[in-house]
Amino acid sequence: MRVLGVDPGTLNMGYGVIEERSGSQIAMLTCGVLSAPQKMPVEERLCTLYDGLLKIVTEFKPEEMAVEEPFVANNARSALAIGRAQAVAILAGAQARLPVARYMPTQVKQLVTSYGRSSKDQVQQVVKLQLGVMGLPEASDAADALAVAICHLNQRHLNQILNRGY
Amino acid sequence: MRVLGVDPGTLNMGYGVIEERSGSQIAMLTCGVLSAPQKMPVEERLCTLYDGLLKIVTEFKPEEMAVEEPFVANNARSALAIGRAQAVAILAGAQARLPVARYMPTQVKQLVTSYGRSSKDQVQQVVKLQLGVMGLPEASDAADALAVAICHLNQRHLNQILNRGY
Repeated sequence: MRVLGVDPGTLNMGYGVIEERSGSQIAMLTCGVLSAPQKMPVEERLCTLYDGLLKIVTEFKPEEMAVEEPFVANNARSALAIGRAQAVAILAGAQARLPVARYMPTQVKQLVTSYGRSSKDQVQQVVKLQLGVMGLPEASDAADALAVAICHLNQRHLNQILNRGY
Repeated sequence: MRVLGVDPGTLNMGYGVIEERSGSQIAMLTCGVLSAPQKMPVEERLCTLYDGLLKIVTEFKPEEMAVEEPFVANNARSALAIGRAQAVAILAGAQARLPVARYMPTQVKQLVTSYGRSSKDQVQQVVKLQLGVMGLPEASDAADALAVAICHLNQRHLNQILNRGY
């Protein structure tokens, strides 16, 4: 099972593709950050991010997609920008016929570290351990994207267990 | 010059295509509302609206696009939804290689009625008069989309006059 995780932003969109192998071992296939300079007009920015995601989908052929559903505080301006970035991510996945799941930050923490109030650092430690990579990219958007992908795999496992009727 | 105007929303997306003919007469080619039921998952909703807009672009071949940039008050939840809808509209236009212009509600009022504080009703009256249609569709999202398209044509005229150096 290959999962594309995305941490959406209109300037920086983190992405990471992971693959579950036998014995629930997880490997990282790629990760990084798509960037769109702030001085670009919005329409070009959105297209750049959309095209970038489609390229990753074409190259790495994930079967499912998981998008972080950002926590929206009371800042309507930033909520508007986050909504745009999220739509770009969701559309790229859905147009490529991938099932798209969305997770709140607390769900990501809960499902990755089994604790909903973990620090960003703790989440990244678990991500590194699970993927067996020592140094994750500096860009924490990429690490966040890997975390939401792992979160999705763990949610799938939980669903499978629940469906089996335990 | 054919312009596609869009009034973005995640449940209802208003659209209208107008054409400027000789003597700055303007004709309406189509208008309506794309709807995506609230019970649909977000990804399906966004795809439905995106595909709907692409269909209109393919059928009516507008040369430019104008999107209403919504007024975002302090409601972060609704700003997130508006951001998503706006991204869908902008992406559909930009992927079809249309130049995409965005207008604030006050700009639409100013450029359609020459007064930035017109009521919604006054804007719709002018839209009806300019398009020579007596009854506009009940759905005011469609009428808003036509207004932003007319606003864009008027802005283009202004730019042409300014570029001529008057």
